Amino acid sequence: MDGSGHDRVYICEVVARDGFQNEARFVETADKIALIDALSKTGVAKIEATAFVSPKAVPNMRDAAQVMTQITRRPGLVYSALVPNLRGAMAALEAGADELNLVFSVSDSHNMANVRMTSADSLRAFEDIFALSRAHGTPAAVTLATSFGCPFEGRVDGERLLDFYGRCITMGASAMALADTTGMGNPAQVERLVGRALALHPHTPLGLHFHNTRGMGLANVLAAYRAGARCFDASLGGIGGCPFAPGATGNICTEDTVHMFEEMGIATGVDLPALMDLSRRLPGLIGHETPGQVAKAGRSGDLHPPPAQAASMAAQAR
Amino acid sequence: MDGSGHDRVYICEVVARDGFQNEARFVETADKIALIDALSKTGVAKIEATAFVSPKAVPNMRDAAQVMTQITRRPGLVYSALVPNLRGAMAALEAGADELNLVFSVSDSHNMANVRMTSADSLRAFEDIFALSRAHGTPAAVTLATSFGCPFEGRVDGERLLDFYGRCITMGASAMALADTTGMGNPAQVERLVGRALALHPHTPLGLHFHNTRGMGLANVLAAYRAGARCFDASLGGIGGCPFAPGATGNICTEDTVHMFEEMGIATGVDLPALMDLSRRLPGLIGHETPGQVAKAGRSGDLHPPPAQAASMAAQAR
Repeated sequence: MDGSGHDRVYICEVVARDGFQNEARFVETADKIALIDALSKTGVAKIEATAFVSPKAVPNMRDAAQVMTQITRRPGLVYSALVPNLRGAMAALEAGADELNLVFSVSDSHNMANVRMTSADSLRAFEDIFALSRAHGTPAAVTLATSFGCPFEGRVDGERLLDFYGRCITMGASAMALADTTGMGNPAQVERLVGRALALHPHTPLGLHFHNTRGMGLANVLAAYRAGARCFDASLGGIGGCPFAPGATGNICTEDTVHMFEEMGIATGVDLPALMDLSRRLPGLIGHETPGQVAKAGRSGDLHPPPAQAASMAAQAR
Repeated sequence: MDGSGHDRVYICEVVARDGFQNEARFVETADKIALIDALSKTGVAKIEATAFVSPKAVPNMRDAAQVMTQITRRPGLVYSALVPNLRGAMAALEAGADELNLVFSVSDSHNMANVRMTSADSLRAFEDIFALSRAHGTPAAVTLATSFGCPFEGRVDGERLLDFYGRCITMGASAMALADTTGMGNPAQVERLVGRALALHPHTPLGLHFHNTRGMGLANVLAAYRAGARCFDASLGGIGGCPFAPGATGNICTEDTVHMFEEMGIATGVDLPALMDLSRRLPGLIGHETPGQVAKAGRSGDLHPPPAQAASMAAQAR
């Protein structure tokens, strides 16, 4: 985010938005606020706190304004809100969001399914939001959904993706994110596209939003990091599954992502034990286990006492 | 394996050994044989079929000889067996194993816990096995357990690891494998150590055996691949968890690994749909779900029909 090129990364925690939005059980507003306030103390760089969307379409986000106005703001931390349209943008600004996150899909069929218009029409509709955000002095970032694949169309053409990427920046996007909405991207593709996006637009902050739907989440993080990306969305516990992949995992898991970077000697600024504690309490809020691994297994450096001399079940492990 | 340097990888399927050995339920011998025979048709390069170990310590491997003698051998495919000692080696050769896989831990405390001797003493005890394998004309490979970390001691010194690596080759190891026994390795460490091992011993085939205990499994595969490794152990469905990490996943998942490589354009020679079918039948054999993702989510290229025009739960997915 600071563009200094130092070997540290920045984490954007999305559990309160992407994590909760598909949960069947309504997460109580007070619980959301308490979680965000606790996450604010862990050292993440940004928190996507909520989404100003149709409460009918996404019941778990119906308390967006309450959440955004009642959380305790930590200075320096960015509290962003996803907004799909001008009405959502106005509500988000009214509630004091630090940053708007505008989302559309670069695949027409996915965008049609979501908002009944083509990708190009969605982008055109963002003009008013960019104007509003400028007038308000609040930055508006854009997330390109289905950047690495569409569940209806398959692989998205890289030129099309980069064309939309450039147009968003021209229109005034303060930052960009490439989202692998349904976990279809692979490391070779990620490294190539991230490298091209950064080469074409070196002064625009770029975030990556990966899902672990097919197990490639952290491999894709690694590939994006190698290509120069330093900002990563992630969800506590790895929740936020896609409706097209029942049983599959969701967003990449924040604590697993932080753990990998820290083990590699790359700073995240995040208090990992605090994050793991929060993750372990997550099943109490959503009513089911989470896919994250590190909260279950412990950090690589969390050692175990050696068993008594006797051979054990571990005897043949390798 | 062929050392040609082509961009293809070789998969060693370990579900029948590392996958099953920690399962509480005994997998019927006929089911093991049927599974191995089915796996033989998928294009994997090697199958670790069983382990000739103490039936008391590892009840699920008590049918080692039956399995090894009753499977249908596919020409060109290597059927290996894990052996911990000379007695196991004799039994494995008697049963017709194509390759012995000798294992010891490069961490003394882990090796002590498993076989009540130091790493160096284990290696010395292998001398007789190497002699036997030479006399028999059957290759003996060595797997170095805890190569990337020991649950009792933590990070293993790289010089110590490479010293053992070299000594095994001097003693006659036909191939080497570095095993991340409890999933502690990270991509930076993996790339560094694999690169050094290959640089020091360019003519010795090197396999990598990763566990996904902390979510880094495929990121580590990617890192090892970049360092030049081309042979990877993996377990159907990703089973084979470690007793020190309850709830954590096990070996890297074969179908997820194959899927990642194939998506990256790197050939594996494996029939992925056939593998996914077998994986989906695995819960019937072991009585519980498996951690693998691709068998649940489908391949990245397995497209879905677009939903009817109406906005849906997917409306805000990104």
